[in-house]
Amino acid sequence: MSVTLVIVSHSAKLAEGVAEFVGQMNAGQVELEAVGGTDDGLLGTSATRIHAALERATQAGGEALVLMDLGSARLRSELALDLLREEQRVRVALAEAPLVEGAFLAAFEAATGGDLRTVQAAAEEGGALKKMG
Amino acid sequence: MSVTLVIVSHSAKLAEGVAEFVGQMNAGQVELEAVGGTDDGLLGTSATRIHAALERATQAGGEALVLMDLGSARLRSELALDLLREEQRVRVALAEAPLVEGAFLAAFEAATGGDLRTVQAAAEEGGALKKMG
Repeated sequence: MSVTLVIVSHSAKLAEGVAEFVGQMNAGQVELEAVGGTDDGLLGTSATRIHAALERATQAGGEALVLMDLGSARLRSELALDLLREEQRVRVALAEAPLVEGAFLAAFEAATGGDLRTVQAAAEEGGALKKMG
Repeated sequence: MSVTLVIVSHSAKLAEGVAEFVGQMNAGQVELEAVGGTDDGLLGTSATRIHAALERATQAGGEALVLMDLGSARLRSELALDLLREEQRVRVALAEAPLVEGAFLAAFEAATGGDLRTVQAAAEEGGALKKMG
């Protein structure tokens, strides 16, 4: 089963931008869910919408890695996780990773068929990614 | 003088989303330039457009901190920096920081009047920002 990357941001545009970036880099070979903004389209996060994305990702045996921006993104992601049934929850992980860099590294792993732990480990290398050489 | 944050991403939507997020978090108290995509609006980066943003940011004595996503974003930012006059170039720094988390931390510092080195230092703490507690 494939690992879906669930991109959680306070900004819808930011979440969609991350999904666009890593999606195009991987030529559509990775499953992505962009979950940005509140239920009303404002700046913020929504446990309801994160939960819906996790439901879609974990139905039929799929796994999901959640990448978050900051602050409430984590709390809402944990709440969304709690709302899942146990059999789904075990197939979801939250990444300790910078949003863009983590998603970028995770996507390559997911696109080549990595399982949840492998994709999570790839994402979590994002914090050590050097930009300035 | 204020420090402008220049957000460089391969995706226009991603760059604009980061600017939207940190801009709203700081109620418009921080100067932001979103530079995403190529000159043709495709996925990629543009030294020309980064240079134009740096020109705007550094005219009249202003400073600029560049935050980048990955790969060519750094090379194009370095090229854009080289295109500046020396008197402007000394007022620009490239951040060794994750894009979203770095911009988030830098923006608070910039919004409260921090100088370039202070804002850069704040951004570079972004890599150590914990999400999972």
